Amino acid sequence: MLSKSQISFVNALHQKKYRKEHALFIAEGSKSITEFLASDYSVDTVFYTPDALPNLSKLSQKVKQLEISASELKKISALQAPQDALALVRIPERTNLNVESFKKKFTIMLDGVQDPGNMGTIIRTADWFGFSEIVCSQDTVEAYNPKVVQATMGSLARIKVYYANLEELVEQAAIPVLGAVLDGTSVYESSFGKEGFIVLGNEGNGLSPTLQRALTKRITIPRFGKAESLNVAISAAILCSELRRKS
Amino acid sequence: MLSKSQISFVNALHQKKYRKEHALFIAEGSKSITEFLASDYSVDTVFYTPDALPNLSKLSQKVKQLEISASELKKISALQAPQDALALVRIPERTNLNVESFKKKFTIMLDGVQDPGNMGTIIRTADWFGFSEIVCSQDTVEAYNPKVVQATMGSLARIKVYYANLEELVEQAAIPVLGAVLDGTSVYESSFGKEGFIVLGNEGNGLSPTLQRALTKRITIPRFGKAESLNVAISAAILCSELRRKS
Repeated sequence: MLSKSQISFVNALHQKKYRKEHALFIAEGSKSITEFLASDYSVDTVFYTPDALPNLSKLSQKVKQLEISASELKKISALQAPQDALALVRIPERTNLNVESFKKKFTIMLDGVQDPGNMGTIIRTADWFGFSEIVCSQDTVEAYNPKVVQATMGSLARIKVYYANLEELVEQAAIPVLGAVLDGTSVYESSFGKEGFIVLGNEGNGLSPTLQRALTKRITIPRFGKAESLNVAISAAILCSELRRKS
Repeated sequence: MLSKSQISFVNALHQKKYRKEHALFIAEGSKSITEFLASDYSVDTVFYTPDALPNLSKLSQKVKQLEISASELKKISALQAPQDALALVRIPERTNLNVESFKKKFTIMLDGVQDPGNMGTIIRTADWFGFSEIVCSQDTVEAYNPKVVQATMGSLARIKVYYANLEELVEQAAIPVLGAVLDGTSVYESSFGKEGFIVLGNEGNGLSPTLQRALTKRITIPRFGKAESLNVAISAAILCSELRRKS
């Protein structure tokens, strides 16, 4: 049975402030939890309903665990429709960014993306298209926000998300910086080369002026109709798809 | 000033039942409202804050209108962060589906898409890529749900959304039915032809068995990494992009 203090501890982790303080985040659903158990992440605690147990074969005795009821799960879940289990996962320390590691591959770079659903969908899409890292500006939504974790559908377990000063990073890395803008070369006709950052900007304002200036290639998804813009996760996906199609 | 009965009338329209009863839906923000004013839709009432007025040049005296305060807007808005105006727009009657109208073009078909954000993003993406219609199964989320309207960013004003029995429709239309599945031909190598339905399925279950059987072409977005699946709006976007790239 869940104690009152456990309930309030998990609920506190719905907020960024306490996730930072305890270096823990919430992952929900046995499917997603299994991905974290199989990854480099350290899973601290798993709260599971009896329904979830058959799906948690990767749950070893080394992980703290507690069987709870569906109604108890409801009290700690961050979801409107709670699934079958909830885990507390340790937030990895990712402070030492090795600039050399970005060479000879492509990395997605997010400059101020705000919506958790967009962020989660970008992580999931990056995982589909075989990327392993995403680098974000400090003002990009936190990857460990429960809505982001949910939208990644387990892909957060495989994609490393870094937060950094992007201007400094692109300068130090000295690799191409390819950005999605409204007035560049058609993505269908662009060559991507062999390495670089693929940069996507904020939902309302696009790329920050400093990053705009750092672009070495300006790429546009041609418009065939009348919408004013595309959703940022959609733009990211089309760029990733075109990159892989041509590689 | 807003009356109590106006407040409760607008709030009732947050629910599907009352939208159906009154044949009205809510569109928010002067930018989006302007798109509806410029479209075939009939805008019934516009509630605007003083800030919105300069952006509502298309608002004629024929439309019912009322200036309200930001705090009044908060009382009727369906958004967590209300914008500058809210309009009531008439839901068009779209019952007579002309099967012939689907020939010699491509139409997006949604089979049980449930998430309002996905639906809205698909409508916005369809508008970007120059589609004019989307046909949905009866169990697809309602296009006039405030969260859908919001996610379309005004594109709902240009995309006609129909609800129909899809099995009957594909049989009667007798044009190719191209579906996104996990075990088809690579989208990069597929030819789309000159007409057809582009079918996307439910977030969890994909296409319904009957529609699976009706497919004339099975298309897959190649996977380069480890994610189990793609978000449905992402899949739709990549199919639309590939279709336009090749046409």
